[in-house]
Amino acid sequence: MKTFSRPNFYTDLALENCEALQGESETPDGIEVTVEEDEAQGIAVTWVKITNDAGAEAMGKPIGNYITLESPRMKEADPAVHESISKIIARKLGNLHPLQKDASILVVGLGNWQVTPDALGPQVCERMLVTRHLQEAMPRELQGRVRSVSALRPGVMGLTGIETAEIILGVVRHIKPDLIIAVDALAARKTSRVNATIQISDTGINPGAGLGNKRTPINHETVGVPVIAVGVPTVVDAATLVNDTMDTLFHALSAAASENDALINMLNDMENEERYALIKEILDPETGNMFVTPKEVDAVIGRLAQIIASALNIALHPGITARDVNRYLN
Amino acid sequence: MKTFSRPNFYTDLALENCEALQGESETPDGIEVTVEEDEAQGIAVTWVKITNDAGAEAMGKPIGNYITLESPRMKEADPAVHESISKIIARKLGNLHPLQKDASILVVGLGNWQVTPDALGPQVCERMLVTRHLQEAMPRELQGRVRSVSALRPGVMGLTGIETAEIILGVVRHIKPDLIIAVDALAARKTSRVNATIQISDTGINPGAGLGNKRTPINHETVGVPVIAVGVPTVVDAATLVNDTMDTLFHALSAAASENDALINMLNDMENEERYALIKEILDPETGNMFVTPKEVDAVIGRLAQIIASALNIALHPGITARDVNRYLN
Amino acid sequence: MKTFSRPNFYTDLALENCEALQGESETPDGIEVTVEEDEAQGIAVTWVKITNDAGAEAMGKPIGNYITLESPRMKEADPAVHESISKIIARKLGNLHPLQKDASILVVGLGNWQVTPDALGPQVCERMLVTRHLQEAMPRELQGRVRSVSALRPGVMGLTGIETAEIILGVVRHIKPDLIIAVDALAARKTSRVNATIQISDTGINPGAGLGNKRTPINHETVGVPVIAVGVPTVVDAATLVNDTMDTLFHALSAAASENDALINMLNDMENEERYALIKEILDPETGNMFVTPKEVDAVIGRLAQIIASALNIALHPGITARDVNRYLN
Amino acid sequence: MKTFSRPNFYTDLALENCEALQGESETPDGIEVTVEEDEAQGIAVTWVKITNDAGAEAMGKPIGNYITLESPRMKEADPAVHESISKIIARKLGNLHPLQKDASILVVGLGNWQVTPDALGPQVCERMLVTRHLQEAMPRELQGRVRSVSALRPGVMGLTGIETAEIILGVVRHIKPDLIIAVDALAARKTSRVNATIQISDTGINPGAGLGNKRTPINHETVGVPVIAVGVPTVVDAATLVNDTMDTLFHALSAAASENDALINMLNDMENEERYALIKEILDPETGNMFVTPKEVDAVIGRLAQIIASALNIALHPGITARDVNRYLN
Repeated sequence: MKTFSRPNFYTDLALENCEALQGESETPDGIEVTVEEDEAQGIAVTWVKITNDAGAEAMGKPIGNYITLESPRMKEADPAVHESISKIIARKLGNLHPLQKDASILVVGLGNWQVTPDALGPQVCERMLVTRHLQEAMPRELQGRVRSVSALRPGVMGLTGIETAEIILGVVRHIKPDLIIAVDALAARKTSRVNATIQISDTGINPGAGLGNKRTPINHETVGVPVIAVGVPTVVDAATLVNDTMDTLFHALSAAASENDALINMLNDMENEERYALIKEILDPETGNMFVTPKEVDAVIGRLAQIIASALNIALHPGITARDVNRYLN
Repeated sequence: MKTFSRPNFYTDLALENCEALQGESETPDGIEVTVEEDEAQGIAVTWVKITNDAGAEAMGKPIGNYITLESPRMKEADPAVHESISKIIARKLGNLHPLQKDASILVVGLGNWQVTPDALGPQVCERMLVTRHLQEAMPRELQGRVRSVSALRPGVMGLTGIETAEIILGVVRHIKPDLIIAVDALAARKTSRVNATIQISDTGINPGAGLGNKRTPINHETVGVPVIAVGVPTVVDAATLVNDTMDTLFHALSAAASENDALINMLNDMENEERYALIKEILDPETGNMFVTPKEVDAVIGRLAQIIASALNIALHPGITARDVNRYLN
Repeated sequence: MKTFSRPNFYTDLALENCEALQGESETPDGIEVTVEEDEAQGIAVTWVKITNDAGAEAMGKPIGNYITLESPRMKEADPAVHESISKIIARKLGNLHPLQKDASILVVGLGNWQVTPDALGPQVCERMLVTRHLQEAMPRELQGRVRSVSALRPGVMGLTGIETAEIILGVVRHIKPDLIIAVDALAARKTSRVNATIQISDTGINPGAGLGNKRTPINHETVGVPVIAVGVPTVVDAATLVNDTMDTLFHALSAAASENDALINMLNDMENEERYALIKEILDPETGNMFVTPKEVDAVIGRLAQIIASALNIALHPGITARDVNRYLN
Repeated sequence: MKTFSRPNFYTDLALENCEALQGESETPDGIEVTVEEDEAQGIAVTWVKITNDAGAEAMGKPIGNYITLESPRMKEADPAVHESISKIIARKLGNLHPLQKDASILVVGLGNWQVTPDALGPQVCERMLVTRHLQEAMPRELQGRVRSVSALRPGVMGLTGIETAEIILGVVRHIKPDLIIAVDALAARKTSRVNATIQISDTGINPGAGLGNKRTPINHETVGVPVIAVGVPTVVDAATLVNDTMDTLFHALSAAASENDALINMLNDMENEERYALIKEILDPETGNMFVTPKEVDAVIGRLAQIIASALNIALHPGITARDVNRYLN
């Protein structure tokens, strides 16, 4: 029995694009994948490099670097695990984009603070040690130990009436940072990756993509400053869930199917997009606005925001410790 | 091609049990269904009566009355629609359980205030005009116009370590109300019903059933006082969504299937429970803890709590208007 | 016995500056005060005009118009009163700054959303019907009936590291509105005015002044666009409270005092600023960071935000009703 | 010049009652005060014992033990300081009321979760490791290492219509704990103590006293089970602030006053209660409902709840570490 070829649906995770390609006979040129695993901690780190246009086309993502940390434990309430993950992220940020001592950084928290799974970016901003305004009045013990950091929560177009990229551009032109770090909620294919994966890339970000709204991208080209993106998949869309589950179900039962199964054959013969569209149509129209999310989403988003904010505070203010950061916050 | 018989999964809505039975050749004895439709408002009201044990068995629900209001507009931000719905609920409550002038009522808000789709009950409590403590110090203009109302948010067992029924029983023995009205979030089969349906019944409630945790029921028998339950389905579980969508997909494509489709036949031959269990197993283990919910869930739960609290305030304090209620709240 | 002359402390309310001047022998030139009272509703409206530099100096406020609405009932949960007040505000906004049909307006919600009494501005933003992004995809029934409105919550410098005026300037240069309406929490002298007074002025705003942090003002001169300010006093500072209470106490007891009361004479002889500074010094150092606020501040700020947002929605989108606004607001 | 005798106003802190007595010529019989100071940490611990009726009358508090921890650093965001304080509290709880290995404990979080400074108790409950419901299904690694702990947030009478003591009594009769630990927000005299002091006592608690509402006390006598109270002063009332500040001001200026100062003499001759009542009357009627609170109250209450919950989790579940607690929480 023929199996479904891996569908080509949207994912924000380069790692999932890679997995989709792995079924193919030959891996396309222009993609390099390196896997590190920290077994002690159960944290898997994968570095995907897209090096040329062929790779970019195969992956459906721009040329650049995509680093993924995976650990189901990041959503648990374990500060020790959080600290390990924060340190790995801080180190990877340093690898991806080494910073001058006097660099100034703007952290942008994308997303809608009113919708919990989309509130990751805004919540990270609220935990940043911002220092740009303290240049002259810096507490003596911090002098020379912190970089100039500012933080912006631009909101989403539905709340502001303004494209997120416009707000960022307006502010960037005014305050002229050396680097933007944009934090956002992403969309994943697999529910197992929801709230269990952090992706860091140097190719910028598409605000709202995680919840299905495509907007002007925010990257070096559009805002004139390098843009590092840090994201976590926090939702899976309902149609993807159904399609993937059906796919797996048919695989699991494939021994029972025969060459003559007309219905299965028909479903197989459909393009993935076609089948996905059919499922989307079948789902109650209401379901289009629905997503799949864990019960304890409020607590989990808070933990993830804490992990990422700690990582950024460590990476951007190298002269001070996590404990210092806590003391100067708020 | 044989089609799937309607599956027999759990739903809190008697209306959905009825729908499941409608495919059957003859409607079981002991079930009476009356439909009213308020076309002007687009609000459908259905009254399901289970009159004997045969009906109870066929429905999988206790003997009693189940009134359902359906309107997709209750989740919108339209105060005029909310007011119409509140008035219908207030009237139906009066039909279901007429109250003595001096009756005392305990409103119990079941569910977990930390989990938005489960916070309906606690949020209703916070909007109740409670008066039990004012017996002696009642503002003169309210005297003789309000009943003795108290409100309890017992929490969920995971937060308290105590069975919800135990807390209620302890308090009920102490304050001896004449009636309990228990408000809870429910589980539905159809995503179109989520946040668009209110069920009122005189058979009590199973705390936590909406999110999959069965506990001691709260009804006349267990607490010694009549219990009216008011609930809204706020989630659909992921496996139900997949199973139902697959079912509909196969129906839609049934012309293409043949008698020889071994896989389809196998899926058909499975008991519904068996197939559901298979899907549940296939879904990522993570997905077991996930549910399907609309993006704007925070705002919608707030509106539904407002609708129900207004209905209860009108029904329980008949001598005062909605405007009075607002003035004495808080 | 000599009485204290009215102290000259900071207040955001022009009305309170006027009251301070009323004790003086002759009212300075350049100040015009008109009082309207809507007795039925218990809403007092006072229009203060500062017409020249003498008036500006006497008042410590820029030349321009200051309209104040006072009603203790705005903090109560009475939707009918809220609606009356919203309509008066909408009308006064129209008097103060008539708008072209195709004018575009940026609403700026100043303040810190994490600190309840300072969250008024951000909460107003969340209740605005924003339309600027819908220009092309406007629902047909809204076409020609709404103006282009956008809404920005810039945050406070302690959270962003960026001066609020810089963020606004960056965005304004990009989106070029015809008018800015800036909403902010203010500081008052009298606790009776807290959450019971709304001031509308055409002279712009000083972000953070309400909580003691002076920043770059936001007005026509600094941002290049007319700026209407809408504010509510939400706190009183502790030293002001003590000073005023002592003052009143001495007045109340003045019959008992004699010309020889050395202590009283000494306190009288102090400049107001000097006495205020002394009290500030005497108060625990901790008290410097404290403010006086009502218990139910969360609920009250929500109501005030609703009143102001309704007023702005009515004033800016004249072709639609309050009910329409609710329907299009998510 | 005669100075004001120390006023006799209400404070929940036994330590402040002691301070008021220290001006007196001889310390009353029946009061023992022991001070420990941990200078390294800057945490002062004072143990006040009231040993007989004379002491109880002098103090205006029941016979029993009152342990106070003071540190301005508990309101800062420094996890290391929080941990030290949690450990001291846990130790003192053990001294005050040694527990059997199989004791069962009910933690009661008093106060109104809608009013931030009164939400301490409810917030502690949400951070407790509750285990009473796990007796049979206890994760193997926790067996024998945790006590049976439950947690109740009874709410306040204004929200429930039920006296808090009634709810607790109802539940206690049903679940029969060996000990109640009641957590509540308190009222202090000095603003410097607000959010900087934790009092532990074995004499029970008066719900609502911190915000001026006297209710049935919750103690061994009223509920039939020993009651340990843990509290933090989170507000100071406005009239107390004014009275104390005036008092200090007159002291500071006393050199300038003469025997002939009629007004001062009159104020001195007033009973403290009389003067306090006069100030209360002079303050705007609105101010009666107001309290003095720091700006960052939301963040601070969260930190204090975390400190106390950690202390209780350590004290009640001695076989597990802080890290374990975090892992099993939610």
